[in-house]
Amino acid sequence: MSSSFGSLFKISTFGESHCPGVGVVVDGVPPRMSLSAADIQQQLDRRRPGGNRLGTERDEADQVQILSGVENGLTLGSPIGLLVKNKDQRPADYGSMSQIPRPSHADYTYRVKYGIHASSGGGRSSARETIGRVAAGAIAEKFLLEKYGIEIVAWVSSVGAHDAAQVDLDKISREQVDANEVRCPDSAAAQKMTAEIVAARSDKDSVGGVVSCVCRNLPAGWGEPAFDRLEARLAQAMLSLPASKGFEIGSGFAGARMRGAAHNDPFVQKGDRLGTLSNYSGGVQGGISNGEPVYFRVAFKPPATIGQEQQTVDYQGNATVLAAKGRHDPCVVPRAVPIVESMAALVLADLALIQKMRS
Amino acid sequence: MSSSFGSLFKISTFGESHCPGVGVVVDGVPPRMSLSAADIQQQLDRRRPGGNRLGTERDEADQVQILSGVENGLTLGSPIGLLVKNKDQRPADYGSMSQIPRPSHADYTYRVKYGIHASSGGGRSSARETIGRVAAGAIAEKFLLEKYGIEIVAWVSSVGAHDAAQVDLDKISREQVDANEVRCPDSAAAQKMTAEIVAARSDKDSVGGVVSCVCRNLPAGWGEPAFDRLEARLAQAMLSLPASKGFEIGSGFAGARMRGAAHNDPFVQKGDRLGTLSNYSGGVQGGISNGEPVYFRVAFKPPATIGQEQQTVDYQGNATVLAAKGRHDPCVVPRAVPIVESMAALVLADLALIQKMRS
Amino acid sequence: MSSSFGSLFKISTFGESHCPGVGVVVDGVPPRMSLSAADIQQQLDRRRPGGNRLGTERDEADQVQILSGVENGLTLGSPIGLLVKNKDQRPADYGSMSQIPRPSHADYTYRVKYGIHASSGGGRSSARETIGRVAAGAIAEKFLLEKYGIEIVAWVSSVGAHDAAQVDLDKISREQVDANEVRCPDSAAAQKMTAEIVAARSDKDSVGGVVSCVCRNLPAGWGEPAFDRLEARLAQAMLSLPASKGFEIGSGFAGARMRGAAHNDPFVQKGDRLGTLSNYSGGVQGGISNGEPVYFRVAFKPPATIGQEQQTVDYQGNATVLAAKGRHDPCVVPRAVPIVESMAALVLADLALIQKMRS
Amino acid sequence: MSSSFGSLFKISTFGESHCPGVGVVVDGVPPRMSLSAADIQQQLDRRRPGGNRLGTERDEADQVQILSGVENGLTLGSPIGLLVKNKDQRPADYGSMSQIPRPSHADYTYRVKYGIHASSGGGRSSARETIGRVAAGAIAEKFLLEKYGIEIVAWVSSVGAHDAAQVDLDKISREQVDANEVRCPDSAAAQKMTAEIVAARSDKDSVGGVVSCVCRNLPAGWGEPAFDRLEARLAQAMLSLPASKGFEIGSGFAGARMRGAAHNDPFVQKGDRLGTLSNYSGGVQGGISNGEPVYFRVAFKPPATIGQEQQTVDYQGNATVLAAKGRHDPCVVPRAVPIVESMAALVLADLALIQKMRS
Repeated sequence: MSSSFGSLFKISTFGESHCPGVGVVVDGVPPRMSLSAADIQQQLDRRRPGGNRLGTERDEADQVQILSGVENGLTLGSPIGLLVKNKDQRPADYGSMSQIPRPSHADYTYRVKYGIHASSGGGRSSARETIGRVAAGAIAEKFLLEKYGIEIVAWVSSVGAHDAAQVDLDKISREQVDANEVRCPDSAAAQKMTAEIVAARSDKDSVGGVVSCVCRNLPAGWGEPAFDRLEARLAQAMLSLPASKGFEIGSGFAGARMRGAAHNDPFVQKGDRLGTLSNYSGGVQGGISNGEPVYFRVAFKPPATIGQEQQTVDYQGNATVLAAKGRHDPCVVPRAVPIVESMAALVLADLALIQKMRS
Repeated sequence: MSSSFGSLFKISTFGESHCPGVGVVVDGVPPRMSLSAADIQQQLDRRRPGGNRLGTERDEADQVQILSGVENGLTLGSPIGLLVKNKDQRPADYGSMSQIPRPSHADYTYRVKYGIHASSGGGRSSARETIGRVAAGAIAEKFLLEKYGIEIVAWVSSVGAHDAAQVDLDKISREQVDANEVRCPDSAAAQKMTAEIVAARSDKDSVGGVVSCVCRNLPAGWGEPAFDRLEARLAQAMLSLPASKGFEIGSGFAGARMRGAAHNDPFVQKGDRLGTLSNYSGGVQGGISNGEPVYFRVAFKPPATIGQEQQTVDYQGNATVLAAKGRHDPCVVPRAVPIVESMAALVLADLALIQKMRS
Repeated sequence: MSSSFGSLFKISTFGESHCPGVGVVVDGVPPRMSLSAADIQQQLDRRRPGGNRLGTERDEADQVQILSGVENGLTLGSPIGLLVKNKDQRPADYGSMSQIPRPSHADYTYRVKYGIHASSGGGRSSARETIGRVAAGAIAEKFLLEKYGIEIVAWVSSVGAHDAAQVDLDKISREQVDANEVRCPDSAAAQKMTAEIVAARSDKDSVGGVVSCVCRNLPAGWGEPAFDRLEARLAQAMLSLPASKGFEIGSGFAGARMRGAAHNDPFVQKGDRLGTLSNYSGGVQGGISNGEPVYFRVAFKPPATIGQEQQTVDYQGNATVLAAKGRHDPCVVPRAVPIVESMAALVLADLALIQKMRS
Repeated sequence: MSSSFGSLFKISTFGESHCPGVGVVVDGVPPRMSLSAADIQQQLDRRRPGGNRLGTERDEADQVQILSGVENGLTLGSPIGLLVKNKDQRPADYGSMSQIPRPSHADYTYRVKYGIHASSGGGRSSARETIGRVAAGAIAEKFLLEKYGIEIVAWVSSVGAHDAAQVDLDKISREQVDANEVRCPDSAAAQKMTAEIVAARSDKDSVGGVVSCVCRNLPAGWGEPAFDRLEARLAQAMLSLPASKGFEIGSGFAGARMRGAAHNDPFVQKGDRLGTLSNYSGGVQGGISNGEPVYFRVAFKPPATIGQEQQTVDYQGNATVLAAKGRHDPCVVPRAVPIVESMAALVLADLALIQKMRS
């Protein structure tokens, strides 16, 4: 519970900002799969706060070490332990914040829940907790690609009020996504998004956004009825991400405004399987994949830690003003792209193994 | 997995449309709590398809029987078995549909997954599966109310293009919600919603909608870091409901368009605890309740089964036209209200028990 | 937890002695398997207290009803709800015992744990709780036999000081076991066991015994490393049975007195697989089945409820004398035979499904 | 599953013999508990193969590093990552064994199950896997001692045919146990056990034994009905240990030979609680602790890897002779003592947290 996710392809993450390291144990990875640290590192590098003007300026190397479960470049079928050392373990720059809970941050709720205060405030709510997820997700992705040909691509579809044009779900690639630093494949929108992030930073403010994601080539039949529907698992996975506020699949909230005759996806023959003409369902019917692309979106709020002065109270309830020190990420969505992909991969890998028992 | 939900307050549901009964086993209910069938029946009655013009016209009595776990009106601490008999077990009116998968329905994916076809098509994707959830949820609600004073109220906030005005989260009550048959406390909007549903039925069509829900009086500190965040559990719970397409908490997707300075909820002293002035967070920070009302919305698509003719293909891929026979619910959201409340109660009761281990 | 067992082939049991019924929800049963109530009833009948002189004299019909998950004689892949109604729901004959905890019975610990007293004392520690296990186990057995040819046979190998001669693990059958009422295939030993049980009853006393069990035709490779070793799962399953005090597999406690050169099972070629000459391992190596018969034994204590006067204290600590009223089972092992088989089947069916994900 | 254990106090272990390290993630440790590496190291040192003549001669430093979950000497409530580096990661001395499965070892079953061969043969069946258990168990023990005053002491009660005299369950201490290298508090028996182990080594053979364990000061009420009985959880825990073949609690298999009048433990008043005069129950009634010492025994077979020549076959079924190279442990029970204690602590810590939800 809590720090474990998945039932057969299962991860247990550990670590916070100011301890020796963060990592994950991945249990259930099939044996005899080729795996190297490089396979994992590429997604960690995409998650890492870069040196560019959009992210934080901290330099985090985030090199992964495989501790177990792999021998001679092949997985053994045993748990794979992964470790990323924290570079700087000294608590710093959080001085004034230790007396004042940051508005809309986990400082307050963690203190209430645990009766103790980790150096960086919200403990496991730290963005560094997601390193374990991304490392594990990279393994899940490799399994899904090699075994089933599944491709998972996420991108930034909005920042503040700026929306990307609809992308081609069948063709969008990570190369297109990474073509600019905001990770939006619509280059015109990307420019506006970048400007908005730069403006937010300049205002000592932050801004929210939306990450969209498509999973292609899923076989029909994945996902379980009732509580482990494919979209239920995805929703849990996405709402477990720091700063996420919403999830929608296929038509989502817009679908709630539609009539059924327009919303229903008519079946057609596609090669040797049934497919659908439209995809308002988002690749899922009755909680089970139907062979069409699984398509969903995740809303992220603007980061809570901002440099602007905010009127608030300290832990004792005394009115005060808080202005966060240090450099903070004005917008999480560009870095959330590989995290969303990783969580999707973890959900799908688990459902893939579960589906095997039906065979 | 699949038909079980929760870790300490845990349910296992069973049953589909055309078997002797549907029900649930509820494990983890604290002992010495007063409980009668009537406590459970009231929510089942709200879920039941009524005789009014908005729902289906089938008359389902849906009387619950307590099979175990209660003696002399008190819970024993042992699993509570609940059974609701199916009135009519004969498969009927699904004849032509057995050869043609309904567009956007679970017929096709269930057949692919299980290689077998339950009489009513999607088997466990049937709306009757939610009876077990509602019965169990009624027990969870009673526990939360008696032990913590927690109140859970859901309502219809949109049908098609018609939105309800913002309600007062501190005051909205089930009496207000049930004042009209569409279960929207904004009576002007309710009239438009009702007209829309009647129009959809008249068009042999269906229409989607949104259910909103507030949970009041939660103590701060509930919810677990990482994968079992309060909003992650809620998101899984809600996306596990038939026809749901989206979930958002607090500011949700609108929050993704905001700046942090506007979105942050400043702390203020409220009585003997810290509270917040605004509630864009939706009562949750870092995945843990902060003492403010937990507030979320769930999007439901228009029901897939419609009387209109639809161009589609049969299981063999031959082009055909399908028009569903019988009477089908043109809009699920009025009946989804108690189901959403029940799932919220199940999530909160589980997190309440988990939080006890921190004490 | 607690009333659930298994991870993929998963059961949730409910019910105690004086409620409307006992039963189980079985999730994970593969679809398209033929299943009728009769398939389940035959093991329930073997578990039922008979009218013979060895068991209790209560007549319990224990007819199972399939509530869900089966249509037209085939499993749907959905949860199978099973219900056995309790014939007599009135608490009776437990009057004096409500003030005096029976020595070595669950009366005391249940009262401490739950702060409430079910009519029959130990609530879920009642022997009727095992009905759900046996009903579910019958389905698991059918799956294992039809899919893998696995046969599970248990028998009484000792009652009090009377031991059965070693049986032929490859040939022992349920017909041989059921040839006498004590369920010991060694007829000479069976006579002594029967006499011992009759003597215990005549003395208003009870007597313990051992049930042995063999599982034949398991493929090599079942069982998981570390915490879900085949023998670990079996041990949990068996020690979860009322009155059980010990479990041993293969050489067991006797093996702890041996040298390795004598204890090791040399490999030999057996048809198209490797087998072993001896089977001190009990069919398991490193927690994983090796293709040889899985063989284990379970120790059961003498039942706690006896008619003899016992010096003890009441709940207030006052010295008193307790003599149980009514007819009580003087020895559980004959009836434990199908229960042990059922728990073994549930363990193996779960490991079978888990192993499928390795394929 | 598999490499995870526990539901609330939960561990996930990783690592095998020839990888960078072994370790564990411990989730559910209460916050604000003092914890240092030294607290953990003391049990790891007891587990470590010593330089004495009874164990293997390999020198394994096995220093534990706390990776996360602890700050300023206090637990944070977040997962605690623990790592012990493997000193020598080069596969060695296993050359001939790679073609010949060791009789009664996991070599064969692992190869069948995973289709791959870890350098040391049985992969996760390696004794090094238990390092993670012992490290986690040390934390569980500290929690149980500080919060409840619970003491857990295990000792060697037999080696081969040599049995220790009955010890005083109320007084036995780790100091007494560690007074000799065989870890048997009966010094006369210890001498015979030591001689037997030395003789087995001299014969290039191995020998089995039994570890007994007592857990004192448990409150009444721990353990769950049905499948999570205290003894069921202990049985799973113990049978999950490499080389274990049996488990018994209280009277165990001897109890199966007794009459109820002799076996029942009469209640008496003990201070402010009910206690029992005898303890054939082993501290557990109906699966729930009754306040008396919990007392159980675990049988371990003689280690499979021996230097003697053994007649067997290779993976292709060709007759051959195998004599293991290198130094191997002739008897596991002295080192199993802290491992048994650790698993008992993990079971009890989990049940302690579960019981909190009843309060």
